[in-house]
Amino acid sequence: MLIHVDRESRTPLYLQIKNQIRDMIFSGVLSPGFRLPPERKLAETLNVNRSTVLNAYHELKADRLIESRVGCGTVVLEPHSAARGQNAPFACPEPIHWRQFFSVTSSRQQNPLLQDLMQLLHRREDVISFSLGIPAVELYPISVFQDIQSEILKKHGQATLSFLPTEGYYPLRESISRFMRKSGAAVSPEEILVLSGSQQGIDLAARTLIDPGDVILAEEPSFFCAVQVFRSAGARVIGVPIDENGMRTDLLESFLARYKPKFIYTIPNFQNPSGTVMSPERRRQMLNLAYSYRTPILEDDAYGELRYEGQPVTSLKALDQHGYVIYLSTFSKTLSPGVRIGWLAAARPVIRQIVMAKQLNDIHTNSLAQFVLDGFLRRGLFEQHLQMIRQEYVKRRNMMMDALQKSMLPGVCWNVPEGGLYLWCRLPERIDKSTVLLMRAIDQGVTFVPGEAFYLEEQGCNHIRLNFALQPKGVIEEGVKRLVKALRETLVSTESLEKEIKAQTNPLF
Amino acid sequence: MLIHVDRESRTPLYLQIKNQIRDMIFSGVLSPGFRLPPERKLAETLNVNRSTVLNAYHELKADRLIESRVGCGTVVLEPHSAARGQNAPFACPEPIHWRQFFSVTSSRQQNPLLQDLMQLLHRREDVISFSLGIPAVELYPISVFQDIQSEILKKHGQATLSFLPTEGYYPLRESISRFMRKSGAAVSPEEILVLSGSQQGIDLAARTLIDPGDVILAEEPSFFCAVQVFRSAGARVIGVPIDENGMRTDLLESFLARYKPKFIYTIPNFQNPSGTVMSPERRRQMLNLAYSYRTPILEDDAYGELRYEGQPVTSLKALDQHGYVIYLSTFSKTLSPGVRIGWLAAARPVIRQIVMAKQLNDIHTNSLAQFVLDGFLRRGLFEQHLQMIRQEYVKRRNMMMDALQKSMLPGVCWNVPEGGLYLWCRLPERIDKSTVLLMRAIDQGVTFVPGEAFYLEEQGCNHIRLNFALQPKGVIEEGVKRLVKALRETLVSTESLEKEIKAQTNPLF
Repeated sequence: MLIHVDRESRTPLYLQIKNQIRDMIFSGVLSPGFRLPPERKLAETLNVNRSTVLNAYHELKADRLIESRVGCGTVVLEPHSAARGQNAPFACPEPIHWRQFFSVTSSRQQNPLLQDLMQLLHRREDVISFSLGIPAVELYPISVFQDIQSEILKKHGQATLSFLPTEGYYPLRESISRFMRKSGAAVSPEEILVLSGSQQGIDLAARTLIDPGDVILAEEPSFFCAVQVFRSAGARVIGVPIDENGMRTDLLESFLARYKPKFIYTIPNFQNPSGTVMSPERRRQMLNLAYSYRTPILEDDAYGELRYEGQPVTSLKALDQHGYVIYLSTFSKTLSPGVRIGWLAAARPVIRQIVMAKQLNDIHTNSLAQFVLDGFLRRGLFEQHLQMIRQEYVKRRNMMMDALQKSMLPGVCWNVPEGGLYLWCRLPERIDKSTVLLMRAIDQGVTFVPGEAFYLEEQGCNHIRLNFALQPKGVIEEGVKRLVKALRETLVSTESLEKEIKAQTNPLF
Repeated sequence: MLIHVDRESRTPLYLQIKNQIRDMIFSGVLSPGFRLPPERKLAETLNVNRSTVLNAYHELKADRLIESRVGCGTVVLEPHSAARGQNAPFACPEPIHWRQFFSVTSSRQQNPLLQDLMQLLHRREDVISFSLGIPAVELYPISVFQDIQSEILKKHGQATLSFLPTEGYYPLRESISRFMRKSGAAVSPEEILVLSGSQQGIDLAARTLIDPGDVILAEEPSFFCAVQVFRSAGARVIGVPIDENGMRTDLLESFLARYKPKFIYTIPNFQNPSGTVMSPERRRQMLNLAYSYRTPILEDDAYGELRYEGQPVTSLKALDQHGYVIYLSTFSKTLSPGVRIGWLAAARPVIRQIVMAKQLNDIHTNSLAQFVLDGFLRRGLFEQHLQMIRQEYVKRRNMMMDALQKSMLPGVCWNVPEGGLYLWCRLPERIDKSTVLLMRAIDQGVTFVPGEAFYLEEQGCNHIRLNFALQPKGVIEEGVKRLVKALRETLVSTESLEKEIKAQTNPLF
């Protein structure tokens, strides 16, 4: 039993002793039945008066943490019953079955695919992730952040730990406004709400806009976390087909007329998962349809800045002159996901209403992160960083395509995305559930996101989403090798399974 | 027109020129109709080839940002129509009336009292706040944080900006688990979920547990942001009366039998707003009732560590041996509200389910903040900090009580809270809506939270909540002076109003 007394502390010695013994009891270092040293002995060991130890033991007895037993000395009691302060028995209930208490909406969320993948990657460092939707870790501007951080802590002191308005740190809202103006969206700082990541914006917008039974239109395939949020809020999500130019606006009007959706959710730039960009013509058509059918648009532009080739296309927010578009973006795909900052740009009545939802959710976003990000933007470092990662990611995209090409797998093909993070990769048709392939891939030490995750109804899907930007040279090639191995195994086993089925069924028919 | 060319940049000169002109157009520095200098002239000014400027102008024309007009030279176009990429007209819709699009739940949130108070305080630095529920800004451990931060950034580098599991940074979960064990709650790190503030925990627990129509029991008066969250999730919130020993458990059974609530929400330590502590006996009674009626408890312990006098009372979580209690706490009331970190401790099935809700809300809490807070806890600095603020806050409590005492206002009295942040102050009965007093107080330059905010039904209330810990010596006295002045004015005006009413009504009756 190791007790340390600090004679210079303001805490009286007896209390120091009492507290340390109490902590050892609660933490299990001293278990029930343990015999404490006699008071005199402990007093000698610690070089304190006997009365000091007496007082400490006295307090511990009062707390029912220890008791004196005849012939046994002083022994430790069971800490939980002791912690109750009294020893009268509790009612002894059945264990609680939590599942019975979860809300209907919450109970429906049974498929935490992303969560499982994230946990897997934290447990197994040998697994190469092509699955996470984040940028390359080794390119996070850590040293620049460090510099800005110490500067800001010095300059703003306590304010960096203090509360901020729910809307966000005003200078950061200004910086974001300036940033958006550069690509043509005339958004004032008052029309910007700082978020704890753009996922929060999807969630808060859903809560602010969706009544149970509402319909939301979205591209199909689309970002599953958005779809889940809309469904949690009670919406029915209807998929509008896409092609290489994004959502098919030739079909959109009939969807609007039929379903009268509460809003349209779209990822016009480097769509997740397909990587497609909505053409300028389609954007204009979508806006005109939104105006005619009085339907707002939720524009999710998480990937817009990650363009490696071709001309930027003006955002729906910049095109919209009538306040129909709620725009979302984030620093998670360009700067770092851990900083947890995104933003929403919309007409002021929308900002006001969503702020009320944020107030009840997390009150405001981490203060220091907002100060530091503002510093980063104001120094023009974000643009520099974007240039750097664009140059790197396009190389990685090419490396992944080369590696896949070299594997010479028949029936495997992919888009060539002009930007973003993902290769949307089609596998041979025999692989109709890419989740099966995922199990084999994990065995091989590589992960991806199975295509069926992005579809609204459960259905077979021979696509997978690969993040080409996350892994550095060398690792990309190794990951593709593992993936190809898993794929070959799956193909062989489905082939033999097919043969088997054929063999079994042929005699019968 | 100031253009700067950087000959060492990787961006071609013509693009540098193009981008700067584009930015000036979008930011309004160059307005529509502005005549750009002739190509030759600009080339001379910038000391570049004429073809470089030609190329820049050519690109700007392609983007429909400028055009050549006969006899006018090159002029800037309207950037918004230019940004559209095409000039064909848009449908010209009616402006959108956003109120028509807000969900029923969202539309009900019409009283953003807290938000208004926060914004007021950010606008007017001369106003003394006794209203915000935060600790004293000047005591945030900024220099310690700075040291830990640079240490951690050096040690963990990129990881501090990278993603973390939704459950939180595992070492921080360990530190919190150790911290909770010290006061007797045997909670494992796996039973802890790191939150972006404990408000998020209230919100996520509500979404995970509440179905529309469920009943929640809560102390009345109680924390209004919790009540609002429960209502947003569709619950009916029923108030159980409190006295100086917390929720009246003698009445609780009849409430449980009648309303069959989904859970009981309680703030057992230094209740917000009343400052009362639920007695050990009542805690045992509440738990026994919870077991008998199979009703979980949501224990909000935001203030438990802020005890200045008397003996700590064991938490419901520590007393509960059967997993009925979901425990919430936060660093916002002890360390800093801007760090936005709280936590939830509960049985693993609850953690798993709430994690799914958090995943769809903000994915995970800011990474660096979690690393730094863990460093703070591991170095034992949190306990030191708690000792320091406890010593200071009890002084401030006494100062505020003294100042109120000295004002000699008849009919004003208050509790003497053993901890927490608030004085729950009763005013003369004539003041039946303290919101009216608040308007006068703001005029005088002081704020508080009017008592009616904490009641479930709209009702008169002659209580106000004063944060005694937030302001330093001197400011407390000045704030009380202003408050007393506002109170005297209100009393006089209600008195004269009463006289007037009497004078008017007497002849009639």
